[in-house]
Amino acid sequence: MTDRITLYSMPSSGNSYKLRLMLALLGRPYTHVALEDGTPELDRAKAQGLLPQGKLPALHLDDGTVLVESNAILWFLAQGSDWIPADPLDQARVLAWMFFEQNRHEPVIAGRASLRCYENRRAQATPERMAELLESGHALLAILDQGLAGRDWLVGHAPSLADIALYAYTHSAGSRGGFDMARFPNIAAWCVRMAALPGHIELDHIP
Amino acid sequence: MTDRITLYSMPSSGNSYKLRLMLALLGRPYTHVALEDGTPELDRAKAQGLLPQGKLPALHLDDGTVLVESNAILWFLAQGSDWIPADPLDQARVLAWMFFEQNRHEPVIAGRASLRCYENRRAQATPERMAELLESGHALLAILDQGLAGRDWLVGHAPSLADIALYAYTHSAGSRGGFDMARFPNIAAWCVRMAALPGHIELDHIP
Repeated sequence: MTDRITLYSMPSSGNSYKLRLMLALLGRPYTHVALEDGTPELDRAKAQGLLPQGKLPALHLDDGTVLVESNAILWFLAQGSDWIPADPLDQARVLAWMFFEQNRHEPVIAGRASLRCYENRRAQATPERMAELLESGHALLAILDQGLAGRDWLVGHAPSLADIALYAYTHSAGSRGGFDMARFPNIAAWCVRMAALPGHIELDHIP
Repeated sequence: MTDRITLYSMPSSGNSYKLRLMLALLGRPYTHVALEDGTPELDRAKAQGLLPQGKLPALHLDDGTVLVESNAILWFLAQGSDWIPADPLDQARVLAWMFFEQNRHEPVIAGRASLRCYENRRAQATPERMAELLESGHALLAILDQGLAGRDWLVGHAPSLADIALYAYTHSAGSRGGFDMARFPNIAAWCVRMAALPGHIELDHIP
């Protein structure tokens, strides 16, 4: 792919980080428009209609096409690469982890982190809600840890989109979400492998 | 594909219905093991380890492989068919709707329906929670209705997995979820088109 692409993303968010990490690992050039929560730049981009449904991340192609949903954009960027396995069954397994991430993992793991770390969410962080998210988050992380038992990567013998999608919010689940990551040794070892991939970049701090 | 497949599913659930609808539209034979919530058969299947993470639906292949996550199973079943567009951009658009469904639509649309319709969920259906889900559900259905404005199908000029994934919980959002579907004329017309597809089957009633 040689078309120019522009990524509108929130650097401190995991869903946005997935895409910047993918682009870095692919070594693909792109224009980055960084829009943090609560900034006039974000309000302006919304008002200009640059973000469908007002959501980040959004990928703009040269011809005006706009793609949304982080995991769908991952799929678009990785087409034709080894990050999507060719085998039909492995492809379904990769998507199964990606749907698990968006339906179950992200709402809890990213949800608790955002209640702890973003000023404008703190009022909703009641002790009951935080305890509930802690317990369900540990159960979800146990599923991921189990999925990594005896293997280097979530699907097959090489890293895939499943690893990118799950890594985004998992690797900061301890520091941001307050989850007890010492319980999950397979996740810890996998995070070290992910961080060692050539081209790997870090998640930005919350401003 | 000629391999024999066995679908473990809950007939009254939208996530399971997606797969039975897809198999019916593809005209593909399969063995169906129906497991409704709160039955001894479901407890037995869980105890026998037939359902990874205890979740339905699950697809068993002849060689012992088990696939989970309704939208990933849809992808597996539809590979090589017209239900997945060949164009890379349209493929990403289909997945964008499917991730929207699992991350935002299903938790609210199916969530409210299950609180209203399943006996064992009713205690959690507080007036505040139901009002909140009604409002956010109408906003999500408005996004879907807008996505169908001026078009017959969600992506391209033919029905795709995006339509199957979104139809499952949307077509019963009025009767089960109590949403005001009269607000969404594009959804209403699309539901009529979906129901007219050759091979279409209905969602089962809640027992």
